[in-house]
Amino acid sequence: MKTVSENRSFGGVQGVYTHMSEVCDCEMTFAVYMPRQAWNEPVPCLWYLSGLTCTHENAMVKAGLQAHASEFGIAIVFPDTSPRGQGVADDEAYDLGQGAGFYVNATEAPWKSNFQMETYVASELRDLVTEKFEVSVHHGITGHSMGGHGALTLAMKYPGHYQSLSAFSPIANPTGSDWGRKQLGAYLGSDESLWTAHDASLVLRDKGWSGDVLIDQGADDQFYDLLRPESLVAALVETRTAHEYRLQKGYDHSYYFVSTFARDHVAWHAERLNVNRP
Amino acid sequence: MKTVSENRSFGGVQGVYTHMSEVCDCEMTFAVYMPRQAWNEPVPCLWYLSGLTCTHENAMVKAGLQAHASEFGIAIVFPDTSPRGQGVADDEAYDLGQGAGFYVNATEAPWKSNFQMETYVASELRDLVTEKFEVSVHHGITGHSMGGHGALTLAMKYPGHYQSLSAFSPIANPTGSDWGRKQLGAYLGSDESLWTAHDASLVLRDKGWSGDVLIDQGADDQFYDLLRPESLVAALVETRTAHEYRLQKGYDHSYYFVSTFARDHVAWHAERLNVNRP
Repeated sequence: MKTVSENRSFGGVQGVYTHMSEVCDCEMTFAVYMPRQAWNEPVPCLWYLSGLTCTHENAMVKAGLQAHASEFGIAIVFPDTSPRGQGVADDEAYDLGQGAGFYVNATEAPWKSNFQMETYVASELRDLVTEKFEVSVHHGITGHSMGGHGALTLAMKYPGHYQSLSAFSPIANPTGSDWGRKQLGAYLGSDESLWTAHDASLVLRDKGWSGDVLIDQGADDQFYDLLRPESLVAALVETRTAHEYRLQKGYDHSYYFVSTFARDHVAWHAERLNVNRP
Repeated sequence: MKTVSENRSFGGVQGVYTHMSEVCDCEMTFAVYMPRQAWNEPVPCLWYLSGLTCTHENAMVKAGLQAHASEFGIAIVFPDTSPRGQGVADDEAYDLGQGAGFYVNATEAPWKSNFQMETYVASELRDLVTEKFEVSVHHGITGHSMGGHGALTLAMKYPGHYQSLSAFSPIANPTGSDWGRKQLGAYLGSDESLWTAHDASLVLRDKGWSGDVLIDQGADDQFYDLLRPESLVAALVETRTAHEYRLQKGYDHSYYFVSTFARDHVAWHAERLNVNRP
């Protein structure tokens, strides 16, 4: 692991790091915010998965999460959204290939050589972060848009991994949306039965979620129809999964929306990750 | 005035606008955050001047000021740092020309046709904002680096304009620094006696500041020697100007530093701009 940069921020350190990923077979970049509370003891760890076109940097710079992580004494990990670099497959479209990994393990060429983002986030990077940083065994996961999809599906697929869960305007039903069908088809092939394990609305009915979940969605989201939040709401209600769903009047899909509600999400995770506030 | 974008943010609206500037003789872009309190009555207005290479966008996206503006019920204006566009003079260096207006009125060719940032910020844009937005007569000013220089010098040169003042790691003594001598020479000519009116450490001794001033400076600022904070501290002490100067251990010159202390600055201005908090 190499350190790209470290900046003091809200009493802690915002770092950017690179490492050679075995599962993605390329160098990957990620960011970690460590609050000052970690100087004394391991702190809980919140995973923030980003959306289409993002790198590790967007949320790190725009979401304002460091202030809240510092307040509650939680580390935040910002993974990249895909493998990158020369020799890594890509597509001209903004919503396929580099910047659009969808948090799945690709089985189809040319993607399968590098696009193993499910295992990368849920196992490889998790192991690295746990080894290299003062984080406790308490992990939560959240994300925005494609990253909200990643947070929801990974939490349900790896039930021991994450003790708390939330999402900002997640892609909620990708098997029924142009934000999903194209990518799941490319990465997993044309057998749609293999896609269902990566659709939060379907996985919730299949595997369920033992905890509760907080979801914020902008009512004026310009991508509302692609996200299909109504499918997830229906699944939450039908499965009687404990949840808080907030359709926020006037808000769009941008980081102005995410940053506005970021503190609520960090507080949600803190309450569930055994943070004892002073 | 044209609206480029408006996004709901922390209950208010973050807008970006363009207008034809008479004094800069080109189209200028600026951003305004209006908190929801302005739906009911005019709110105080804080001017945030940005540093070298910045546009209106950097602080708007990275400083996290909207959260605090929303909390305290204050509007924030983010001007650009220079005129821009085809036909506007520029220089290859990052620290001269477009993105580096230094908040002065240029008198030398080729700059004088457009680079009138002092009058632009202190008068033309001020008049436009006052006319178009629900802001009260209570204005404060702050800024970062070159913008901290702008905030300090404009506040002292226009004593009726700003009732509160602060700065983040300001260029504090430009007549004695490579961040200043080059630009003041280019914009104002070689007569150094004309530069002194744009050097906070000198203007403070000449004109003084009737209020108090909050200044945050990173102790690990990579540009510390160019900023010359010690000159300003000496002037503050010698003139017995009421002030709070904080040399912040471990912090550098980045927006990780600015965002960490942004709330303190908004609170500082709110207290001095007649904000009655609920």
